Amino acid sequence: MPTPTEAPDSRTGRRRFLRFGAALSGALTACKTTNTAPAEPAETSSLGKPLTAYGERSPFEKPERLVVSGKNPEIGATRTPLQNSYGIITPSSLHFERHHSGVPQIDPAAHRLLIHGMVERPLIFTMDDILRLPSVSRIHFIECAGNSGSEWGPKTAPDVQRAHGLASCSEWTGVPLPILLAEAGVKPGASWLIAEGADACHMSRSVPLKRVADDVLVAYGQNGEAIRPSQGYPLRLVIPGFEGNTNVKWLRRIKVVGEPVMTKDETSKYTDLMADGTARQFTFEMEGKSVITFPSGGQKLAGAGLYEIAGLAWSGRGRIERVEISTDDGKTWQNAKLDEPRLRMAFTRFRLPWKWDGQPSSLQSRSTDETGYVQPAREALVAVRGMNSGFHNNCITIWKVSADGGVTNV
Amino acid sequence: MPTPTEAPDSRTGRRRFLRFGAALSGALTACKTTNTAPAEPAETSSLGKPLTAYGERSPFEKPERLVVSGKNPEIGATRTPLQNSYGIITPSSLHFERHHSGVPQIDPAAHRLLIHGMVERPLIFTMDDILRLPSVSRIHFIECAGNSGSEWGPKTAPDVQRAHGLASCSEWTGVPLPILLAEAGVKPGASWLIAEGADACHMSRSVPLKRVADDVLVAYGQNGEAIRPSQGYPLRLVIPGFEGNTNVKWLRRIKVVGEPVMTKDETSKYTDLMADGTARQFTFEMEGKSVITFPSGGQKLAGAGLYEIAGLAWSGRGRIERVEISTDDGKTWQNAKLDEPRLRMAFTRFRLPWKWDGQPSSLQSRSTDETGYVQPAREALVAVRGMNSGFHNNCITIWKVSADGGVTNV
Repeated sequence: MPTPTEAPDSRTGRRRFLRFGAALSGALTACKTTNTAPAEPAETSSLGKPLTAYGERSPFEKPERLVVSGKNPEIGATRTPLQNSYGIITPSSLHFERHHSGVPQIDPAAHRLLIHGMVERPLIFTMDDILRLPSVSRIHFIECAGNSGSEWGPKTAPDVQRAHGLASCSEWTGVPLPILLAEAGVKPGASWLIAEGADACHMSRSVPLKRVADDVLVAYGQNGEAIRPSQGYPLRLVIPGFEGNTNVKWLRRIKVVGEPVMTKDETSKYTDLMADGTARQFTFEMEGKSVITFPSGGQKLAGAGLYEIAGLAWSGRGRIERVEISTDDGKTWQNAKLDEPRLRMAFTRFRLPWKWDGQPSSLQSRSTDETGYVQPAREALVAVRGMNSGFHNNCITIWKVSADGGVTNV
Repeated sequence: MPTPTEAPDSRTGRRRFLRFGAALSGALTACKTTNTAPAEPAETSSLGKPLTAYGERSPFEKPERLVVSGKNPEIGATRTPLQNSYGIITPSSLHFERHHSGVPQIDPAAHRLLIHGMVERPLIFTMDDILRLPSVSRIHFIECAGNSGSEWGPKTAPDVQRAHGLASCSEWTGVPLPILLAEAGVKPGASWLIAEGADACHMSRSVPLKRVADDVLVAYGQNGEAIRPSQGYPLRLVIPGFEGNTNVKWLRRIKVVGEPVMTKDETSKYTDLMADGTARQFTFEMEGKSVITFPSGGQKLAGAGLYEIAGLAWSGRGRIERVEISTDDGKTWQNAKLDEPRLRMAFTRFRLPWKWDGQPSSLQSRSTDETGYVQPAREALVAVRGMNSGFHNNCITIWKVSADGGVTNV
């Protein structure tokens, strides 16, 4: 067992724990610690709560999704409280939602998946059929194409949940779609598929067949249990790295076709209007991105001293290779430490100790993915994309820390 | 993007999806599929349920922990329904419990962690202190030393939840313990620590300092949110690979000492009585193990045809390198496919397609970890350990499949 923080002292033979570093020593001075023998923490002498069949979180824990709907409470989105997130897994209860006609309540015994169109053998699968097929589990983020739309400005969102909370990350389990397509037998000339949900609006997206690799799942599991209703129970298409709504929830139908279908969901929405008045369509891949979740907008630092800057980075094109952090308005950048494992099309948690001197500061992070793509500054993004877009904003977020410790979005 | 299941056909230029294999073709014949154009699955035309701030699982999903307590409902254990698990993450609501005096309800604002004993500077940390320190997130299993105790026999448990459900796997986030010890300054001669919980019974375990590497965490996060009360809210010691109760919940105190303390929790319990009447003590590491979760005891196969055998493997000594499966009473063994990433001291999901011919069969799995340790058959375990032990049973489980598809524990 390697113990890198521990080294024998050859003079005394005693174990010597190496200090984390000068920065941390400073931090702990800032912490409320004591050099005198302290009183013991409070303790209890009465029995606690009983065992339970299905656990709940502590009543002291309040993080919630932020609900943003129109006049119908079934239609809209909820945003993940990334400011309260730890690690890379999003609790299923806090995974963002985006629904166009509410969450259908589906009895899995009655649910069917139809594969038809340009295939040799149209097939219908029950959930029991699906569950006995070869499956795989993988950790992937899903991000709505509209995430960070507020950051086009002019008025940016005040906190990380409002700005970037349409992204979450889960362990998905399901059957690789190529297995199902192979059984159906794709006919010559086929080049796209349409995936359709069982919600009332029949949310549908066209997806190029060339993207249907083994990592595209007809998924039934999320974070170790059945997919939650608001994430597609009992069946969801998971296309790692592709914009959220191509990951069709409540999946009921896959039709193999020869060209994209131009559904309402890919013409009235999810296109990117450029400065010259033309629109990009089928911009499926979510570009490389990162955001600092602590300290972030709306939070308040307790005072000067050491903190750990933490955040999340992800890319629809693969693995995150590097995240740099600047604490001085972009003048200098340091590599953050990346938690392992760094997985393709998954959140990667980054961290950097930071000793705040109590002066006004700005914090920003910049990701680089395995293709070499570097997350752009807002000006660079606008130079390419103009100001007409709502979707696919992946620019750098800058959090301003005031002298009083308050954090705001620049 | 690699598309290994897809290959151009040089004769026709069409895309050709390669079939998964002969075994699967057999399976899908067994599935209720059709060669004629099928009717479309049922659909809805009414709005579904509204957006919600904190999601719940489907009302059709019933997996629960199995509660096993004595006369006090606060004291006992609950077991994870591994037969219903997908992937490697255990939902926090279904993570096993083992409590000696119930679940204390702790206000994190009032909680403190004391580090004292043979240290230069006794320290008390608030939760705010802890949360600003450098942290890391890692996926690790925790397994009760008493897991699989039923498998010593003579009457083995009927299903995988009862037999092996005292093991679960989460993403844990926390501060590496060496950072805290370095700040306190460990004195010469120190070689152990005692970790104590804030439950009424002050559950305490002695842990050798030589095990306190950077992967030992003072953890506050589990699966992306705060640790659940039944897993130690707000603070838990996580010692990857060590038996469950050394991962002290509701952690309130770490005392650095010169020898093990022989607490009630390590003398009256958690020792292994050998055949010669002596007892092994401080057998911390959970040995390499695996179990098939589907098909497993109490389940019933629908009939002959293809199924995916799936299961979980783990080792307290590192990574799982191999899982072999036998479907013929141990006469022949095949390597199972292991889901990636395979992480140290974490669940690894294994899978193998299996075409059941409808005849009585026996299914068993055998893990090998990165140290080369091979999971033993029951006879081999008994030969070394005798029959007096309750703890640390990691022998191979054999599921018998009857001609009617019923599955039982041999």
